[in-house]
Amino acid sequence: MDLFKRFKAMQKQQKAYQFVLTVAGWDSNTEAPKKSFPYRAEMLSMISGELFSLSTSEEYQDLVSQLLEQHEELTPRDRLEVMEAKKNLDKIVNVPKDEYVEYTKLVNLSQRAWEDAKANDDYEAFKPYLEKIIAAKRRHIGYRTTRPDKYNVLLDDFEEGMDMEKYDAFFETIKKDLVPFVKDVLKKKRTQPAFATATYPREGQKRFVEYMMKIFDYDFDRGVLKESVHPFTWSTHTQDVRFTVRYLEDQLFSSIFAGAHELGHAIYDLNFDPELDETNLNHGASHGIHESQSRFYENMVARSKPFWKANLDKLKKQFPDQLKDVDVDAFYRAVNAVDETFIRVEADELTYPLHILLRYEIERDIFEGDLNVDDLPDVWNAKMKQYLNLTPKKASDGVLQDVHWSAGMFGYFPTYALGSAYAAQLYYTMKNELDLDTLLKNNDIKTINAWLKDKIHRHAATKKPLELLEMVTGETFNPSYYVRYLKEKYSALY
Amino acid sequence: MDLFKRFKAMQKQQKAYQFVLTVAGWDSNTEAPKKSFPYRAEMLSMISGELFSLSTSEEYQDLVSQLLEQHEELTPRDRLEVMEAKKNLDKIVNVPKDEYVEYTKLVNLSQRAWEDAKANDDYEAFKPYLEKIIAAKRRHIGYRTTRPDKYNVLLDDFEEGMDMEKYDAFFETIKKDLVPFVKDVLKKKRTQPAFATATYPREGQKRFVEYMMKIFDYDFDRGVLKESVHPFTWSTHTQDVRFTVRYLEDQLFSSIFAGAHELGHAIYDLNFDPELDETNLNHGASHGIHESQSRFYENMVARSKPFWKANLDKLKKQFPDQLKDVDVDAFYRAVNAVDETFIRVEADELTYPLHILLRYEIERDIFEGDLNVDDLPDVWNAKMKQYLNLTPKKASDGVLQDVHWSAGMFGYFPTYALGSAYAAQLYYTMKNELDLDTLLKNNDIKTINAWLKDKIHRHAATKKPLELLEMVTGETFNPSYYVRYLKEKYSALY
Repeated sequence: MDLFKRFKAMQKQQKAYQFVLTVAGWDSNTEAPKKSFPYRAEMLSMISGELFSLSTSEEYQDLVSQLLEQHEELTPRDRLEVMEAKKNLDKIVNVPKDEYVEYTKLVNLSQRAWEDAKANDDYEAFKPYLEKIIAAKRRHIGYRTTRPDKYNVLLDDFEEGMDMEKYDAFFETIKKDLVPFVKDVLKKKRTQPAFATATYPREGQKRFVEYMMKIFDYDFDRGVLKESVHPFTWSTHTQDVRFTVRYLEDQLFSSIFAGAHELGHAIYDLNFDPELDETNLNHGASHGIHESQSRFYENMVARSKPFWKANLDKLKKQFPDQLKDVDVDAFYRAVNAVDETFIRVEADELTYPLHILLRYEIERDIFEGDLNVDDLPDVWNAKMKQYLNLTPKKASDGVLQDVHWSAGMFGYFPTYALGSAYAAQLYYTMKNELDLDTLLKNNDIKTINAWLKDKIHRHAATKKPLELLEMVTGETFNPSYYVRYLKEKYSALY
Repeated sequence: MDLFKRFKAMQKQQKAYQFVLTVAGWDSNTEAPKKSFPYRAEMLSMISGELFSLSTSEEYQDLVSQLLEQHEELTPRDRLEVMEAKKNLDKIVNVPKDEYVEYTKLVNLSQRAWEDAKANDDYEAFKPYLEKIIAAKRRHIGYRTTRPDKYNVLLDDFEEGMDMEKYDAFFETIKKDLVPFVKDVLKKKRTQPAFATATYPREGQKRFVEYMMKIFDYDFDRGVLKESVHPFTWSTHTQDVRFTVRYLEDQLFSSIFAGAHELGHAIYDLNFDPELDETNLNHGASHGIHESQSRFYENMVARSKPFWKANLDKLKKQFPDQLKDVDVDAFYRAVNAVDETFIRVEADELTYPLHILLRYEIERDIFEGDLNVDDLPDVWNAKMKQYLNLTPKKASDGVLQDVHWSAGMFGYFPTYALGSAYAAQLYYTMKNELDLDTLLKNNDIKTINAWLKDKIHRHAATKKPLELLEMVTGETFNPSYYVRYLKEKYSALY
């Protein structure tokens, strides 16, 4: 089919532009020098503009429309590619190019303004940027649809199939069933033992992360481990999946669990069906599903007791003095300690969803209610008080702590909690089919990888998130597994 | 002038493509994982193809022609930009796009074939690629000109203004005046002292390179130091100039002098007039001039005795045991030891030009004589015997040692020797104006940088190499300075 061949050729051209932009992004986030950014932003916005033109050209639009009309002549796989193309097209096709390029620049500037504002605890300096970004988001949604429920458009962008109704139900479960439990646990919180805050030289931390990469069966010929301030995973195709961690000498747990988390993301991308590299379907099923994999490897694998039965001695070899008299039970308790914290990325597994709940409610009220940027800090602080009994003293501990809003990523946060909930639902299914504790005790993570590869990873974006979850677990998304998992785990710990 | 504005806009677009290709090149050469290369080559060749189309479009060609016709209305700087554009256009405009893209792929494949052939000492496996590349080079020259002296076209590409007549005279001087001297020195060669081959852990080497960056006044906010197998310098504009070295624990001198060499390249690029970042003139005056700067900092600065008077103690702090009883004289002699070696990149300053002489004669005979790829290994070995009294036992020590030919870079090698000769001519001019020894003894490299910035660096590509040399030294290129410099230095040493 000649039409589909032309479509593939145009897709490939667009992929080449995405490829170079993605490579430049890796460079920006891991090592590009400070003073290179203005020129870099200029050059990259030109290439983004070219990609925008290609991705919205009349010729390409016509092709996609024609293929959709003739979709019955396509193979199921080819049809999925065309539908994915249509979805991406709908997001941008009505945005004027100038406005698109302007928005790219605004986001760039806002992120730098946010960095400065955060460093200076100066919300007022960031406010005008935030206001512009929210206005731009509203305008962009307006180009796409006349729907009044704007926030649903954003939620669906980050997690296809999710909307306020479903998220409200999810967070209601958390509020009703989890918040009281968390409060009980917090009453029993313990002081961390000395080894949790001892000094751990970075070389030893790095060697342990590299050791984890080996037992997690990471393919060193298809990736890179590097350092960056904010850990992240990056990939262009199945043959190049990299990730970063950060080594803080007074926070051993940080590199270990960020390492396990990013390894979870990386294993997912490494295990896509490699044939999908040539398509627009070579990404995760959704942000939530991606996060479910990182959370699974971080929490169900690396924060489990059998994992440390198998590996604490290895860690002790790197740090014999610091960990001298520490046994598996003490270590397990320390890496699962619960405490109220201001900062989401430092939160423990149990309080984490409350940080997300707060952000979800705020975003919903910005787009659906009448919450405006002037009131944001107060609303933030009130919710912190309500859910975690804390009052931030400075904006960097509160409303300014996350990069997401400065990058225009509204609708993203809820997928973090959703990912943990998906992970719990998958966990109980897996436990019915695999003897997880024994596998972990034997360091047989390969078998866990193989199960997840078969059920989730290899499909990449050929399945929708909720469809995939139902396929694997036999039921629709059910947040009660998440509550059950957390209660089981933390009742034993506290 | 509206025409020139349109020209600048098209130039900027081309620069954006070059930018992303250059960033991707840094990634390829420093950390992209092994298995990522096939996909990467595919993606990058698409972007190269797009750049080719932009750089040779009718519209762009017309613009350049019209601007050349109206060149009297342009400012001198603008005229230079148009002339540079015309020069670049002439190189590729008549090459069919398919052939250009094919050639890009051939070069990619050849470099990988060369790597394998070198690893296996198997010249026969590489021969077919070399043959194809030479044929392609001839064909490309044919698209540009009907001149019979094809090698001159290549020489001029790498060093504008140079041709076989000038290079023949240069290498004749080397053969006549230097080769006998080298033979005399080699008769007196000494065994290296034990500290020259002791073990030096990489962390200490890295700290010393970082220390050199400080005293060389490198701007850490405008660059990055990294490791790679082959040290190189890389830049996109004056705000981003990076370089790499390699740390071999049994070869301390390797990282120190590669570091000084690459710092020379980097200081040049960092000191271009930053206004030129917005033009096509933000590169060195030529390969030879660029190499003159790296050779100057490597040899006249870092291999000088006063430099080690100032810095040996610093190095000893990193390696107190290995360098315990070493004094400045012994260290100076060791870092300037002369010996016959098979490998160009490991050659000392004195024998280095003989390695280049050999390659120049071979390239000339390929393009102007009847030397064919079957006879290359024998001819190589015969010349090694003649100039350095060595006979390579394996191809990796001989004809397969360099990457250049596999990358189609014929005409490049002679600029390496030329760079050293330019450096010597600059050295005697500088010594008339600055008290070089005292500056070095005081670690006042800033003053040397300032002199070179004023005379050479800031001009970037706004001057032609031979014009620049004459402007600075008051005379045309004169290879006798090079012979004089080497004889003065090595007569004192041997």
